[in-house]
Amino acid sequence: MSSSSPSLEEYVEGVLNGDRAILSRAITLVESNASKHFELGQNVVQKLLPYTGNSVRVGITGVPGAGKSTFIEALGTWLCDKGSKVAVLAVDPSSTVTRGSILGDKTRMERLAKEPNAYIRPSPSKGTLGGLNRKSRETLLLCEAAGYDVILVETVGVGQSETTVRSMVDFFLFLVITGAGDELQGIKKGVMELADAILVNKADGNNITKAEATKIDYDRILHYLRPATEGWITRAHTCSAIKGTGIEEIWGVIGQFMQNVRSSGMFDERRKRQTLSWVYGMVEDQLRASFYDNPAIASNRDDVESRVLRGELSATQAAQTLLNIYAARP
Amino acid sequence: MSSSSPSLEEYVEGVLNGDRAILSRAITLVESNASKHFELGQNVVQKLLPYTGNSVRVGITGVPGAGKSTFIEALGTWLCDKGSKVAVLAVDPSSTVTRGSILGDKTRMERLAKEPNAYIRPSPSKGTLGGLNRKSRETLLLCEAAGYDVILVETVGVGQSETTVRSMVDFFLFLVITGAGDELQGIKKGVMELADAILVNKADGNNITKAEATKIDYDRILHYLRPATEGWITRAHTCSAIKGTGIEEIWGVIGQFMQNVRSSGMFDERRKRQTLSWVYGMVEDQLRASFYDNPAIASNRDDVESRVLRGELSATQAAQTLLNIYAARP
Repeated sequence: MSSSSPSLEEYVEGVLNGDRAILSRAITLVESNASKHFELGQNVVQKLLPYTGNSVRVGITGVPGAGKSTFIEALGTWLCDKGSKVAVLAVDPSSTVTRGSILGDKTRMERLAKEPNAYIRPSPSKGTLGGLNRKSRETLLLCEAAGYDVILVETVGVGQSETTVRSMVDFFLFLVITGAGDELQGIKKGVMELADAILVNKADGNNITKAEATKIDYDRILHYLRPATEGWITRAHTCSAIKGTGIEEIWGVIGQFMQNVRSSGMFDERRKRQTLSWVYGMVEDQLRASFYDNPAIASNRDDVESRVLRGELSATQAAQTLLNIYAARP
Repeated sequence: MSSSSPSLEEYVEGVLNGDRAILSRAITLVESNASKHFELGQNVVQKLLPYTGNSVRVGITGVPGAGKSTFIEALGTWLCDKGSKVAVLAVDPSSTVTRGSILGDKTRMERLAKEPNAYIRPSPSKGTLGGLNRKSRETLLLCEAAGYDVILVETVGVGQSETTVRSMVDFFLFLVITGAGDELQGIKKGVMELADAILVNKADGNNITKAEATKIDYDRILHYLRPATEGWITRAHTCSAIKGTGIEEIWGVIGQFMQNVRSSGMFDERRKRQTLSWVYGMVEDQLRASFYDNPAIASNRDDVESRVLRGELSATQAAQTLLNIYAARP
């Protein structure tokens, strides 16, 4: 069967049995841009929907050099030791990687990759942001159907992946390190306000005191920001992914968070909201793509833009002109 | 002429002559939702385009109770004393006001309203956010054509008007007051990161020391955030709008900013970007409206959403279903 294409039933059964080879092939199917794979991929997802939704979905982002891979490996291994099944996914809007990067992702988490209860899936190959968003979410659902009860979704690359990942997960973790204030100015706009916890990594050796001070700094800033999740106060914590300290504690924070949001109803509400905004996000991406990819729009845009910038056309007239061109499409 | 409708030429000439009555009528024309006014309004804007773009556009937002009206009055009056012509506009996405509110806006800035070189225009009446955005921008252009060289655009109401105003102006000012950290948690997400300056108002009497401490607090937070304008460091300042202190200083900051962005090319680049994203913002609003207002979409949405939430349909299938319904529209 490994050479021939599995049938719908073989995909569904294989994923439900936790067959990692079939899971990987199902994800590849869903990630495929080929239209012949699209319908089968969607049918697989649809059949598996009743078996999804039962994991804790944790998003992880970090400043450059924060040690994200080391942290994910430490957390993932610790969770596997506790009996969890852990899947690691990556969302990278700037990605140009191909299947070759599987090796790359696995190499950087060597220990975790050897865990029988861990599944590491690298970032899907390049596509539209909307498409990537769809693929990452459906990969997450497939992993849930395969029995993974913790899904770690990491942001990769330089794009605006934080918002995408935040929109897929229950809990969002922001990994930072100690450093001069000047270095911290590199933090992307709004990322701190997406986080349910900030974790200062590398709190070990000579760096412990500095890490504690950084934690206090972040707590002070967080005090001025609105929390990402209603009813939850985002706080800063410390850990050392290398030494394995603070891992159990941050998982305790996530557990407390899940308990809070489940009992407040925020959990159900957010998941429902996430699903529907995913639907309408895809719809709106498609509406935009259909406009911008229209040949008549593509060939008239430059001219209309120049006329606006030369002050010959009001912006409203320009928008109307483009919409009229679009409406006249065959 | 005040009772009959002015012609295109009368509008254009009147606005260029700085005739306030004609300016007001031109703005009302542009704000009108009636389709019979639309084309004339657009022609007026188009004819006046060559005379626009020559003002300093300053956006002003504030936390509740920051004394925004008092500050705008103090700054506006001070600018008029220096020989400027100042227009004050308001953007309020949540507005339900009608023409009656003109009185309201003028009453709260009584001194400024009496200045012959000041023009206060209240927020336009309720409409779609996109429509409101269009109207506010075109009002700004009309004021520029009428010779106002400083345009103060204030956010009003509880909506997401900060982003809209930021997208219309050169400089964005965030007005705050002293207060416990807890009160400051009320600051809307991301607003601090839109600001080119933070101004702690009410730095007078017994409050001066506290205001200075608040300024230092904000400077510390700003240090961790990315500046709103590349090449410019956003800083906190203090003023007392009631006493008139700090007004000249903040105008000096704005002047320094304008000099920097003009010489770096950022000024031209931002204005160009603002104009084009305004065009495409209107286009995309229209594409969305055309989808959501479609009767077949409106009558099928609930059913499709329920099927997704019951796990019967994948999100991708749901999006596809809605897009197929939309494509089949007459």
